[in-house]
Amino acid sequence: MTRAADRLLDAIEEKKNPSVVGLDPRIGLIPEHIKEEAAGEGVMPFEIVHNSLVKFNYAIIDAVKDIIPAVKPQMAFYEQYGSWGVKAMESAITYARNRGLVVIEDAKRNDIGSTAKAYADGHLGMVEISDKTFVTSMGADFITVNPYLGTDGIRPFLDSCKEYDRGIFVLTKTSNPSSGEIQDVLTGDGVPVYELVAGLVNEWGKELMGTGEYSSVGAVVGATYPREAERLRELMPNTIFLVPGYGAQGGTAEDVMPCFDQQGSGAVVNSSRGITFAYQKEAYREDYGPEEFAEAARAAASDMRADLLEALEKSGKLPKGW
Amino acid sequence: MTRAADRLLDAIEEKKNPSVVGLDPRIGLIPEHIKEEAAGEGVMPFEIVHNSLVKFNYAIIDAVKDIIPAVKPQMAFYEQYGSWGVKAMESAITYARNRGLVVIEDAKRNDIGSTAKAYADGHLGMVEISDKTFVTSMGADFITVNPYLGTDGIRPFLDSCKEYDRGIFVLTKTSNPSSGEIQDVLTGDGVPVYELVAGLVNEWGKELMGTGEYSSVGAVVGATYPREAERLRELMPNTIFLVPGYGAQGGTAEDVMPCFDQQGSGAVVNSSRGITFAYQKEAYREDYGPEEFAEAARAAASDMRADLLEALEKSGKLPKGW
Repeated sequence: MTRAADRLLDAIEEKKNPSVVGLDPRIGLIPEHIKEEAAGEGVMPFEIVHNSLVKFNYAIIDAVKDIIPAVKPQMAFYEQYGSWGVKAMESAITYARNRGLVVIEDAKRNDIGSTAKAYADGHLGMVEISDKTFVTSMGADFITVNPYLGTDGIRPFLDSCKEYDRGIFVLTKTSNPSSGEIQDVLTGDGVPVYELVAGLVNEWGKELMGTGEYSSVGAVVGATYPREAERLRELMPNTIFLVPGYGAQGGTAEDVMPCFDQQGSGAVVNSSRGITFAYQKEAYREDYGPEEFAEAARAAASDMRADLLEALEKSGKLPKGW
Repeated sequence: MTRAADRLLDAIEEKKNPSVVGLDPRIGLIPEHIKEEAAGEGVMPFEIVHNSLVKFNYAIIDAVKDIIPAVKPQMAFYEQYGSWGVKAMESAITYARNRGLVVIEDAKRNDIGSTAKAYADGHLGMVEISDKTFVTSMGADFITVNPYLGTDGIRPFLDSCKEYDRGIFVLTKTSNPSSGEIQDVLTGDGVPVYELVAGLVNEWGKELMGTGEYSSVGAVVGATYPREAERLRELMPNTIFLVPGYGAQGGTAEDVMPCFDQQGSGAVVNSSRGITFAYQKEAYREDYGPEEFAEAARAAASDMRADLLEALEKSGKLPKGW
C-alpha cells in the first residue's frame, strides 16, 4: 500500500478538491423515509438506528464519491448509540474505503502507551483475536489523536502507522471557542502551548514521511483561527492540516487559506452538517426535498469545492491544472 | 438517585476500601477454558472474543463485588474489537451496576461542544433514538475526559452529570512517563499546565458538589507523581482523585498517600492487570491455576486493600472505624 500521506494528497489531486465530508449522522436529522425503510416487524430500536445510519451514509457516500477525496466519520455520533452505532461506523468505513475514498476517523483518542496501543491496533492496525490470528478491526486510513499525554501516548499510533501505512492527525489548535484556555497559554519561553505541540508533531512526523514533502502525521488546525493557522503553517512545513470549523462553525474559505502551502497543497477542509444535512438548509431546501437528501449533499459538496477553489485562486494558490 | 460523588464515597466507606478494579481484558491473557466455553459451532471469531470478555468480566465482578466499591472498564480494550468489543463493555457496565458497584468508564473522551454532547449523552445520559424517545445507551456513573479543548468541550458532560447524577474525572497529571511534555510545561505565570488544569477542574466542580466536601467533577492524578499529587491535593480540596499507576506502572501505596485528604478520603486508587490477571503473577501462580483466575483476582484485590490501609495507617490517615 502507498503511504497514508500520499494516498490522501493523491486523492485530493485526482478529484481536484481539498475537502472532506464529515459523516456525523444524527438520527433526528435523518429523513423520515430512511427511518421507515430501516424499521420493520421485530426490528429493535437500536437496530433501527443502526440501519438508518448505514442507509444514510451509503447514500451520501455514493452521491459524493466521484467528487470528494475523503470522508471523516466522527466517532462520537456513532458511539453514542453504543455497539449498534459503532457497527454502523464500521460499515461506513468499509463502504467508503471500498469505493476508493480515504477515511479519516475523528475519534480524538489518547491514553498511556499500553492502552494507546489497543486504540492503535483497533482503529489503524490489526488485533489478535485468537492465538496468532490477527484481523483488521476498524481499519481507517487516519485517526485523530489528542497530544495531552505526550510522546508515549502517541508512540503506539506511530508504530501502527508505520506497519500498516496509516496516518494520524494530532489536535494542535482546535476550532472551538474555548480552545485557547489551554492551547493558547504562553509558556515560560513565550510560545503558546499549541506551538509546543507543533514542535512535537514535527518530531513525530519525521519517521513517517510520504514520498513527497508531507508526513503521515498531520495536525488538526481550526478554520476559526486563521492567524494561528498562518503561524502553524510556517512552523510545520511537512504537516498536512485537517481543518474543521468551515461552514457551520463560522470559518470561511478565506479563513482556511493560511492552512494551505504556496502551491495550494497540504490541507484538507472538513464540512459535516453543511453537506450531509444540506437538504434542511435554506440554500438547498427549495431544490431538494428530504427524498433527495443525497443529491442535496452532492450539490453542497460541489458548492464547497467551488468556494475553496475560488479562494485558492484569489490567494494565488490554485494548484496547476485545477 | 444520589449524586455521583456521594455514591462513590459512600461505596468506599461501605467497603472500607478506596480502590477500584480496572476491567481491561486482553484476549491473549484470558484463560483458555473461558475461550473454549465462549466458542462453539458457528460462533464467529469476534463473537468468541465478545463472549470471552463477558464471561471473564462477570466472573471477576462476582469475585470482588463484596470487597470493592467500583470498577473501571478501560474502553480501549473493548473498542479495539469494534462493535463486538463495545457490546461486551456495555454488558460489563450493566452487570456491575446491577450488583451495586460504581462504574467509572475510562474513555478519555474530548471534542468540541456539539460533539462532546454526543459522548456525554451516550456514556452518561440518554440518547434520542426516535421521535421524543430517549433511552440509556451505556449508562456509566463516571467517565474520564481530556481537558485539551477547554470549557466548551467539558460543558456537555457537566450538563449530563447534573441531569443524570453522573460524574467525570478530568485528566490533570497522568501517570505515564512522558506526561510532562505538555502537562509540566511552565506557563508565563510560573505554574505548570497541570496546575492550570486544576484551576479549571475547581471551577467546573463548583456546580456539581455532592452533599459533602467533594464534587462529582474529579481529577485523574497518576500514582507515579507523588510530589505533583501533593501539590494538587492542596489546590483541589473538593476534587476526588482517580489514581492510576499503582502496581503494574510502578506506583506504591506510599506513593498514592498524598492523593488522600487528612481523613483518608477523596481518592480512589486503580489497579487493572495486577488484579484481573493476578493468576499469571508469580505471587499468586502457585496458589491459583488458570481455572481459579477469579479467586486469584479476589486475593489480589484483598491484598491491595490491605496494602493501602497499612499505608493510610502509617501516614495517620486511616479513616475512623476501618
